[in-house]
Amino acid sequence: MMHNNRWVKKVTLPPPSLGDNTADADRLAAALKKSLGIRTVHMDLALLKQLPARLREWNFRATAVWFKDDGGNGILAHLAAPDTADTLCGLAVDLGTTRVVLRIIDLSTGAHLGESVFDNPQITVGPDVLARIHHVEKPDGLNRLNRLIVDGINDALKVLCDGCGISRANIHLMSVAGNTAMTHLLIGLNPRWMIREPYIPAVNRPGVITAAELGIHVHPTARALVFPNVGSYFGGDLIAGILYCDMDQRDETAILVDVGTNAEVVLGNRNWMMACAGAAGPALEGGVTRMGTMAGPGVIDRIAIDPDSMAVDIHTIDNQPPRGICGSGVIDLAAALFRSGMIDIRGKLLPDRCGDRFKLKDGLGHLTLVTADQSATGQDLGVTQADLDSLVRSKAAMYTILETITGSVGMQQQNLETFFVAGTFGAYIDPASAITIGMIPDLPLARYHSLGNSSLGGATRVLENPECFDRVNQIRDGITYLELNVNQDFMNRFSAAKFLPHTDTSRFPSVRWPDGR
Amino acid sequence: MMHNNRWVKKVTLPPPSLGDNTADADRLAAALKKSLGIRTVHMDLALLKQLPARLREWNFRATAVWFKDDGGNGILAHLAAPDTADTLCGLAVDLGTTRVVLRIIDLSTGAHLGESVFDNPQITVGPDVLARIHHVEKPDGLNRLNRLIVDGINDALKVLCDGCGISRANIHLMSVAGNTAMTHLLIGLNPRWMIREPYIPAVNRPGVITAAELGIHVHPTARALVFPNVGSYFGGDLIAGILYCDMDQRDETAILVDVGTNAEVVLGNRNWMMACAGAAGPALEGGVTRMGTMAGPGVIDRIAIDPDSMAVDIHTIDNQPPRGICGSGVIDLAAALFRSGMIDIRGKLLPDRCGDRFKLKDGLGHLTLVTADQSATGQDLGVTQADLDSLVRSKAAMYTILETITGSVGMQQQNLETFFVAGTFGAYIDPASAITIGMIPDLPLARYHSLGNSSLGGATRVLENPECFDRVNQIRDGITYLELNVNQDFMNRFSAAKFLPHTDTSRFPSVRWPDGR
Repeated sequence: MMHNNRWVKKVTLPPPSLGDNTADADRLAAALKKSLGIRTVHMDLALLKQLPARLREWNFRATAVWFKDDGGNGILAHLAAPDTADTLCGLAVDLGTTRVVLRIIDLSTGAHLGESVFDNPQITVGPDVLARIHHVEKPDGLNRLNRLIVDGINDALKVLCDGCGISRANIHLMSVAGNTAMTHLLIGLNPRWMIREPYIPAVNRPGVITAAELGIHVHPTARALVFPNVGSYFGGDLIAGILYCDMDQRDETAILVDVGTNAEVVLGNRNWMMACAGAAGPALEGGVTRMGTMAGPGVIDRIAIDPDSMAVDIHTIDNQPPRGICGSGVIDLAAALFRSGMIDIRGKLLPDRCGDRFKLKDGLGHLTLVTADQSATGQDLGVTQADLDSLVRSKAAMYTILETITGSVGMQQQNLETFFVAGTFGAYIDPASAITIGMIPDLPLARYHSLGNSSLGGATRVLENPECFDRVNQIRDGITYLELNVNQDFMNRFSAAKFLPHTDTSRFPSVRWPDGR
Repeated sequence: MMHNNRWVKKVTLPPPSLGDNTADADRLAAALKKSLGIRTVHMDLALLKQLPARLREWNFRATAVWFKDDGGNGILAHLAAPDTADTLCGLAVDLGTTRVVLRIIDLSTGAHLGESVFDNPQITVGPDVLARIHHVEKPDGLNRLNRLIVDGINDALKVLCDGCGISRANIHLMSVAGNTAMTHLLIGLNPRWMIREPYIPAVNRPGVITAAELGIHVHPTARALVFPNVGSYFGGDLIAGILYCDMDQRDETAILVDVGTNAEVVLGNRNWMMACAGAAGPALEGGVTRMGTMAGPGVIDRIAIDPDSMAVDIHTIDNQPPRGICGSGVIDLAAALFRSGMIDIRGKLLPDRCGDRFKLKDGLGHLTLVTADQSATGQDLGVTQADLDSLVRSKAAMYTILETITGSVGMQQQNLETFFVAGTFGAYIDPASAITIGMIPDLPLARYHSLGNSSLGGATRVLENPECFDRVNQIRDGITYLELNVNQDFMNRFSAAKFLPHTDTSRFPSVRWPDGR
């Protein structure tokens, strides 16, 4: 990224003369338009009022922080001295349902100055999107949810800025990526019609809003890009993810899978993009995220079982005493159980193979991984047959979605050259395990790429590079949303995927088959 | 003007469905874009927050009040019920240095609902532009001037709205035309550099501002177009005048002369426009407006003298007892004195011809028109030789400017087919008298057109017709400003014009020569 392709621009204006008596604001706008290649430059009255004195004090030189609006028009967000010592900053926000991440960026250099993570304070109202949207019906419900997230950002931002040694008034630009519901609640828009047929958000393109209107305590003339959504179930976090992995600029067809609150999938390249969301049908209820507990210290994220000795080898986050199993741990476990023959191709526990780890309680099979004396909770840790049944449904849903979206463009899954996995799920999951249980296609492991927090990554890129700003709406408008039609075809594919790895084993040539079968 | 070409638009949206799940805001924007032929539609958060509930309450029909920003993007200024009983109004403002005129327009029909005139309250600070700009240097000076005009508009508007039977919240659009200094003071911009070489305003194109930012008490989401200026001495009032007389759309070349605080002249047609302002040189100091007193009841606006009997026939405004002579009266008087041989071609009083109306006081000639017993002031009313000398300089300046601007495009004044005279001056002046003294060219009287308040007229048209909005910046950008270079050529022309009607009498063939010469 070139240094001159930033939101910070040093400008030197031709000084006014009798032969060139353009007004101050128009003179500045002309210089910015020329050097930035934009059509118009809007400036707030607050900036305009200071302009004549400042330009003369600075001898008609200045440092401009600019931005754009949805129409592609330029906005002057701030004007500083030509030799300003201030660090001119941007704030990228990943507005998650569960966690919110803030990142401060030096707009002049693109350097990341600091980062802060906090739980979305709306969790006190409801753990998930649905609970929060229902809360809106209560008196003052929308306002309360809005205040919670705005105050939460403001509080965390103050601490973050102190830590970075900058003032909040040094923040002149923001970009916010979140799912459609969280975005609505941040802006203060009623999301109630998002969860009622035909599932309509208040807005698809919130565009560029003043930070003041959002209630975020940064510089008063700061602007915030709020990422657009494709619909109630395909939000700005995904648009940010596409931007972050450059799917919209790649020649080869890539796929991006984001498993957060829902599972969302985008398939495409520079010419087209097809998207769908996994919350769109009764077969997918619960999605793939109800598996296990939230990742955190002491949570089991890696499991291996020696097929010969049946010895279980676990890894916990931060190497703390085990207290639960997260999603990636459950996938690892299922793969290990399958390889060691402890579950069958339907995911059913085989008591003979499980030995004394297996217990039957109230007619439900339990498999113990960590005994009470070894666990942080003082209770046995393990999985039930119900957990495994749920995982099988989830993995079948995931696979069926992938099969459906690739099939919708007449593509074979094997031909996917790049498979991005976003979010916490992507960071922890072992692709080999997910392939073993038939959750994702049997591609060479080198084609799988964990993106990490691609929502934050996309929000960051908008602040790093003006070209990325333009791509945001292009990406949004370029997406064809595939309504997951849960018809007989879908259900047939889903049923076929409810086996490990699949009824059609030829699709998973790399999977090591359990001994004796 | 067609009824469907208004800022008020009834819209019917396709209701959302599973197959068409565009968000509410984007659905409304798409419908407006389609029916209005605009690229984007911005809406304030305040409107967006109400949108989902309103659209459902109204069954996806609505009445939209829209506007534009400088970039040509649409703005949703207000959304009302499809069958709203509210009168959706606009406010046109002629922001004069001396007087301010407000006009309420029904945006749906274009009907003019009411009008209000009040003295610009900044007069308490200083009578003219210069005094007010100097006042800005005092502590709180700019703020005081800004408060005076904003409060003045708010106070007058309240009375006006009450009289029209509408609420101020029914006003959704505004347009404001004023000279560059008055515009700066309304917005709160420091005009101090306008009167210092090289005479630079803070802004040429203030564009569209929220009424709230201006501090005007109308609907909170109302927008105001503030007319752009060409420079410190050629303001938005003139741009409004050009719009009002359609100079920018005419095939024939027309000239527009506006004599207010300064004398401004525009010459042009649909292809080009050339402008200049008469305050631009020492020869023109005082301009043509220092003549006489401000028009008002009892002020003499028409004077005739019988060349045989020398009987003076006066007309006063509202037929009240005479208390002064306004500019048009002075021009009439000078023409009458010239025709009756009471002044010579230099404008000097001829005592022999003036008879007992003439007196010499302190070496200065006085001519009495109304004796003390007939006047409202209890004193003789008349003119002095100094008044007449001033008039001769003023008329010479006016004529020289007209000669210069037509000459700059190689045009003969006789070929001007349309001569617009704007403002109070235009409303009262008798072209025949002005021709007699050689102030304006000797054209057939039918070519002279009084425009009345063309500043208010232009501001009104923007609210009546969206096409006029687009023309505002086109007009501004299409003007070539002619810096009146007071060089030897100009001074030679000026000297030649300091005779009645001119040294070159062949230019004024229609002027009746005084008897005996």
